[in-house]
Amino acid sequence: MPFASRLDNVETSAIRELFKLLGKPGIISFAGGFPDSAMFDVEGLREASQKALSEEPGGALQYGATEGYEPLRAQLAAFERSKGVADIEPQQLIVTTGSQQALDLIGKTMVGPGDKVIVEGPTFLATIQCFRLYGADIQSAPIDAQGVQVDRLEQMIVEHRPKFVYLIPTFGNPSGALLSLERRRRILELAVKHQVLVVEDDPYGDLYFGEAPPPSMLALSSEVPGSREWIAHCGSMSKVLSPGLRVGWLVAQPELLAKATMCKQFSDAHTSTFAQATAAQYLKSGRMPATLANVRRKYAERSHAMAQALRRELGDAIEFTEPQGGLFFWARLTGAGGKVRDAGEFASRAIEQGVAFVPGAPFFAKDADPATLRLSFATADVEKIREGVARLGRAL
Amino acid sequence: MPFASRLDNVETSAIRELFKLLGKPGIISFAGGFPDSAMFDVEGLREASQKALSEEPGGALQYGATEGYEPLRAQLAAFERSKGVADIEPQQLIVTTGSQQALDLIGKTMVGPGDKVIVEGPTFLATIQCFRLYGADIQSAPIDAQGVQVDRLEQMIVEHRPKFVYLIPTFGNPSGALLSLERRRRILELAVKHQVLVVEDDPYGDLYFGEAPPPSMLALSSEVPGSREWIAHCGSMSKVLSPGLRVGWLVAQPELLAKATMCKQFSDAHTSTFAQATAAQYLKSGRMPATLANVRRKYAERSHAMAQALRRELGDAIEFTEPQGGLFFWARLTGAGGKVRDAGEFASRAIEQGVAFVPGAPFFAKDADPATLRLSFATADVEKIREGVARLGRAL
Repeated sequence: MPFASRLDNVETSAIRELFKLLGKPGIISFAGGFPDSAMFDVEGLREASQKALSEEPGGALQYGATEGYEPLRAQLAAFERSKGVADIEPQQLIVTTGSQQALDLIGKTMVGPGDKVIVEGPTFLATIQCFRLYGADIQSAPIDAQGVQVDRLEQMIVEHRPKFVYLIPTFGNPSGALLSLERRRRILELAVKHQVLVVEDDPYGDLYFGEAPPPSMLALSSEVPGSREWIAHCGSMSKVLSPGLRVGWLVAQPELLAKATMCKQFSDAHTSTFAQATAAQYLKSGRMPATLANVRRKYAERSHAMAQALRRELGDAIEFTEPQGGLFFWARLTGAGGKVRDAGEFASRAIEQGVAFVPGAPFFAKDADPATLRLSFATADVEKIREGVARLGRAL
Repeated sequence: MPFASRLDNVETSAIRELFKLLGKPGIISFAGGFPDSAMFDVEGLREASQKALSEEPGGALQYGATEGYEPLRAQLAAFERSKGVADIEPQQLIVTTGSQQALDLIGKTMVGPGDKVIVEGPTFLATIQCFRLYGADIQSAPIDAQGVQVDRLEQMIVEHRPKFVYLIPTFGNPSGALLSLERRRRILELAVKHQVLVVEDDPYGDLYFGEAPPPSMLALSSEVPGSREWIAHCGSMSKVLSPGLRVGWLVAQPELLAKATMCKQFSDAHTSTFAQATAAQYLKSGRMPATLANVRRKYAERSHAMAQALRRELGDAIEFTEPQGGLFFWARLTGAGGKVRDAGEFASRAIEQGVAFVPGAPFFAKDADPATLRLSFATADVEKIREGVARLGRAL
């Protein structure tokens, strides 16, 4: 069958292959990018879905507007306001089928064959593939623990004239990095100076362990004149409430939002109104602050446990910055003491010892660092984390 | 902002503009393509969603496989088997976010700029736009009350060598036409002979009024050697159960299904597992046969009422074939007695009289017939249908 040539730009992810091994009994997995199902507020969601069906069954079960279910758009605007986004109104956002769809709509709306897109190296794998399907030529900007390196980013913007810059500024996947306040401001200034769109993907920003991270770039845009025009912000309920709802949202300037809405009309007509009405009732119920406090506390505990165990069991054979939020450790094998330096080889040995993680190489669009790896602490409890890291020590 | 050039191929639908007028108080609408919310089995869906959350909260709220939630795939395969599709297994279908997404995935997987696609003239508007966004050059094959004209279709396949042929064989939107058994067989033979994919979109096949329509082309493919390979079938829960779930499915040969799954991974990761688990529990509950019987009976009543009223009120100024199922009348203004022949003009006059319908022209990819119009009887009860058609008579 003669498929479209755009499929030649992507391949099924290496990670998918690895996931097939996870069925092995007794394995402890640090490989996923999932939140912990045990933390889902099932009772709150049950009540919310019941209310959705009893209060407005038509709205919850009928076709809805492509832009989203109005009561949810209103709740999401209020949620963003509560996080410091000034003056955001419901019509400035559309609801998407998870934030993955927001990325897909940005790709469909903006990217043609050969267009440049700058991402962080490393970045979220499905983003790279999503944009490549539209023909993007992906360029990687280097990062450190404070996020993307701004001087280098500016050079690359000037050199490549990208359609947009894609960043996960807060507790990045896979990097766990937190873009500093100063860098956020500078990037907003760059966006205005070079008239380049910055896409802020923010699924992890609510999952902080200690003090709150700097405001989102969307929130900060009110402090940098002209920058609101150049920010598209992707939000998600997936990591804090439930990925199964597939409720995300996209905030952008009116023209981009209108084009993305048109593309969405032909992608899936609209996001499940049943899921949207449930999410709207949940936000309205007032349970979200307690839910957030709960997941923050538990993930913080697990993250600390993983940091301690890694230092204890792997010592100087591994280096990492302890994350301040999110779901991931991004680490690098140092080879100290003649230990393994290739994360792919380490992953195979680890599976033999009954523990899984993801090698870092696939997260790089270019110039992969084979010594890197990603460890998620989200779905294992503290005891499992200690045991899993001990197995990593044996595998090393 | 420099958008992708693919957006130049589409425009926001003319129908959307018309829908803005529907807010006028007291208007009777024959314009929608919606099922009637009053027929939704709210109680059955409430129970199904509760069971989904109590029996497998993790499955209903966590990330799921891109291919779909396994219990739903099993139920959908059984549903297709109950409709005469021999030997279909769960792994031969994927769950999509409404059948609109199945169309989008077929477009993404198959269509590159300039590729030819043959559709019926007229056909579903969002399909035309969806494929055009991927660069399709859409060709229209003529239809009559028995569906697409096969001799003409074969000529066009030979002439255009299309990536695929897109058909709504059963109670088409907007045509209401029913492709005859003989034509179904001949098209399957054409697919094999010319090695061309046929996409069967089948959201209305369960909504028949009298005897059941011929089997779907997917079902018939087992009688035409080699044809199963060349059929992609899009199913949907939207018209029979609830559009708000956004649960559709795509049946196709393994290679196409694998490519579509990869594209879906980067489009929305997966369809809402909450909606999928709810749909699975609903199908498992055994309520579907009674639900189908109920909607068939009510839509049949409304369809007959509309046919009678149209004959009574508009006489020979309009011609149509009474549909045997689905949601639509497709009609043509004859101009008899010097009456209006332009459906656009008629629509404006109708709105003034307090009744709305959709002119037929936008449903044609090429060579629009300005005398055509689409009337939906789905959401108005018999009394409203009589009053609405009386208003149409006054507008004429």
